[in-house]
Order: sequence, then structure tokens, then C-alpha cells
Amino acid sequence: MTSPFANLPAPPYYVVSFSSIRTAGDNGYGEMADLMEALAGEQPGYLGGETVRGPDGFGITNSYWRDEDSIRAWKQHADHVIAQKTGRSDWYERYEVRIARVERAYGFERR
Amino acid sequence: MTSPFANLPAPPYYVVSFSSIRTAGDNGYGEMADLMEALAGEQPGYLGGETVRGPDGFGITNSYWRDEDSIRAWKQHADHVIAQKTGRSDWYERYEVRIARVERAYGFERR
Repeated sequence: MTSPFANLPAPPYYVVSFSSIRTAGDNGYGEMADLMEALAGEQPGYLGGETVRGPDGFGITNSYWRDEDSIRAWKQHADHVIAQKTGRSDWYERYEVRIARVERAYGFERR
Repeated sequence: MTSPFANLPAPPYYVVSFSSIRTAGDNGYGEMADLMEALAGEQPGYLGGETVRGPDGFGITNSYWRDEDSIRAWKQHADHVIAQKTGRSDWYERYEVRIARVERAYGFERR
């Protein structure tokens, strides 16, 4: 199994935190989500991502980026623009996006 | 049902993003997590939080704070310090914490 943790450099870098509630049914979401994850991974400045969705349909995806320019470029990527539109028409009841500059980071791992 | 979304003011504010994998078994985690959530909600500068854990044990909790001082004060709160220690001894296989300054935010809600 691959780790669910992003392997990140030392700060500073940026995080785009995407909190969402899905609509009922798949409606092509799963396929597009996989596609967008792969495509995001190819973008300049992408550092990694972490994602989880609970049994109640609420999910958080934190994606990590080198700078604001790379976040902006990904938001305007043609395929991603289509996905964003379909997100609003079909896939999400609600979402909230917060763009933040990571200033400190630390962690713990059991031996 | 209460909303899983935090009700936040306009940026700037701060986010503490806590990604984690739990150990097997509860070991008192559920009770302490409820307690810490309630206690965090009483702290000066606490703005709200969003949390989700998936079926594989990986979870993300984003808690939102007015400024770095309030984050620091909560990290040093006596009861929270005990919870953090027990987290490392009993509850978590691994966790990663990123502290970030939220600069922009936007959202979507279906009518």
C-alpha cells in the first residue's frame, strides 16, 4: 500500500484545502477524480496531496504546491476547468476552498 | 445533523492541518478526542474545525485559528499536552502537522 501522507519539502510552501460534501451517486465522479489526481501530479510546482472522505460523504483534500503561481495555473488548466464545472453541476452539494501559506511543519512516526 | 463545515470569517486567519494514521483499537481515544474538541472550542482565537477519518484509518483535521499566538497557547494547554503525549504513546502510528496562514478562501453551495 502506498502511504497516504504527502512527502513534502521544508516550508515555506502552499496548501489548497478543499472540503466538500458529495451529491448522491457517482455520476462519473470516481473516474474524473482519478484523472484529476494524476493530472495534478504532472503540474509544475505540485508537491503532493492527502485526501480522505468519511462514510457520511464529507471529505477533505489538502494539495501542496510550491507557490501561488502554480496553484493559479492548475486552477486555469483546461481539463481542470471542465472538472470544476462538472463539480458544481453534478458532484458537490457544497465545497469550501482555502489557500494558505505553510510556515511551519512537524511530525511523529512510531518506530 | 450539524454541518461538518467550519463557519469562518474572511481571511487572513490560520489553519493547523493535522494528518494522522491511528493505531489499532480505541485505547481511550474516542473519549479524549471528544474532550479535546470541546476544549479547543473554548480557547481564545479558535475559529472552527473540520475533521474526517476514512475507513483505512487515515484522517485529516483542519482547525482554524485567529493567529499564531492562539495556536501556540492551545499547543501548551496542560490538558492538551497530556493528550499529545498519549497520542504519541498510544493512539497514532504517524502524524504530520502543518501550520499555515490562510490568504484566500471561496466556496460553492448548491441551491
